[in-house]
Amino acid sequence: MKVAVLLAGCGVYDGSEIYESTVTLLALDRLGVSYQCMAPNIEQAHVINHITGEEMVADRRNVLVEAARLARGNIIDLKVANAEDYDALIVPGGFGVAKNLSDFAFKGAEMTVLPAVRDFIRDLHRGGKPVGLVCIAPVMSAALFGEGVRCTIGSDADTAAAITAMGGKHVSCAVDDIVVDQQLKLVTTPAYMAAQRISEAAAGIDKLVAKVVEMARA
Amino acid sequence: MKVAVLLAGCGVYDGSEIYESTVTLLALDRLGVSYQCMAPNIEQAHVINHITGEEMVADRRNVLVEAARLARGNIIDLKVANAEDYDALIVPGGFGVAKNLSDFAFKGAEMTVLPAVRDFIRDLHRGGKPVGLVCIAPVMSAALFGEGVRCTIGSDADTAAAITAMGGKHVSCAVDDIVVDQQLKLVTTPAYMAAQRISEAAAGIDKLVAKVVEMARA
Repeated sequence: MKVAVLLAGCGVYDGSEIYESTVTLLALDRLGVSYQCMAPNIEQAHVINHITGEEMVADRRNVLVEAARLARGNIIDLKVANAEDYDALIVPGGFGVAKNLSDFAFKGAEMTVLPAVRDFIRDLHRGGKPVGLVCIAPVMSAALFGEGVRCTIGSDADTAAAITAMGGKHVSCAVDDIVVDQQLKLVTTPAYMAAQRISEAAAGIDKLVAKVVEMARA
Repeated sequence: MKVAVLLAGCGVYDGSEIYESTVTLLALDRLGVSYQCMAPNIEQAHVINHITGEEMVADRRNVLVEAARLARGNIIDLKVANAEDYDALIVPGGFGVAKNLSDFAFKGAEMTVLPAVRDFIRDLHRGGKPVGLVCIAPVMSAALFGEGVRCTIGSDADTAAAITAMGGKHVSCAVDDIVVDQQLKLVTTPAYMAAQRISEAAAGIDKLVAKVVEMARA
């Protein structure tokens, strides 16, 4: 079994959330499941100074090159990834999902998903393989899986309302738990949409990874 | 109890190793121990493209600003940190330890430790508090704690020889284990000096964190 892990850069404010990504990989490895990290080879929407929260306007960084930090260099360009090579997919959170993989951070419920991301995830999904979306990544659920998809981002009212506006069915969820859409094989967990501590995010992600792997093995 | 976690950037080839840092913080949090990340406010020695391994020569990054990615912004400048505020210190590995916190990557056994790093760790040590050094960070052991200090970087012959040349006593160690210098209250583990998988690194780091916390509570 091999799980695709789709990254969006390296850092909560402009890329993939580091703890969520690391905990995902650790949980997979502890289950004896191999994985392949991948990311789109595009420029980041922003580079954010993670102390001040401000944009470093003179700086340009590439999503794939920065995501490689999270993969210790073992990463592939999303465009060469084939959905048929993987048994499942997990997308950790972080603003990069809402800025680089989609434009939710800029357009809210009018968002679209990057075509290469959309097509890869849909191909996996049509192959009957489970998908796990962490933290803010579930805002892509309706765009990817259609109306009525059950998912969670925890309990943030504005984000939940956006999911509803896009046709998703948002389900409130504790930080250490998951929401499962059995029919669509989608698993979601709030992680840092709700977590105050790294162990809280890890508790939910550990459950998500276990469920995704269970579904992939079924 | 509060543990200081000293970072060196964000990424294995030019900063702190991301998995080692994350696993350290997760292990502390799961033990109910609070922590404070910190890093020196200096320019990185290099910026490395983590796909190619080559230097991005036009790029300049700051150790503190990049380390902030690993801390979700919750980080302080090492120069405002007081050793007396902490009960222990842990330094994750990554080339940033050998390039930014010290110059081991450039000078080998002729290395020196950044004065601000050396002084902070020595102040903690003189206060009778335990220190944990992960992966390549134990190459600083002799410079920090003097001759005869027992430590490990696993079994890499060249690095072990450099530690011996500096007056340290290198002890070979399995990837999932630790070496403890009881007298000097130093705990070390090989992590990615030996790990092939993230769960191997995590096994050793979990033991290191547990031992450091145990010593700090004693």
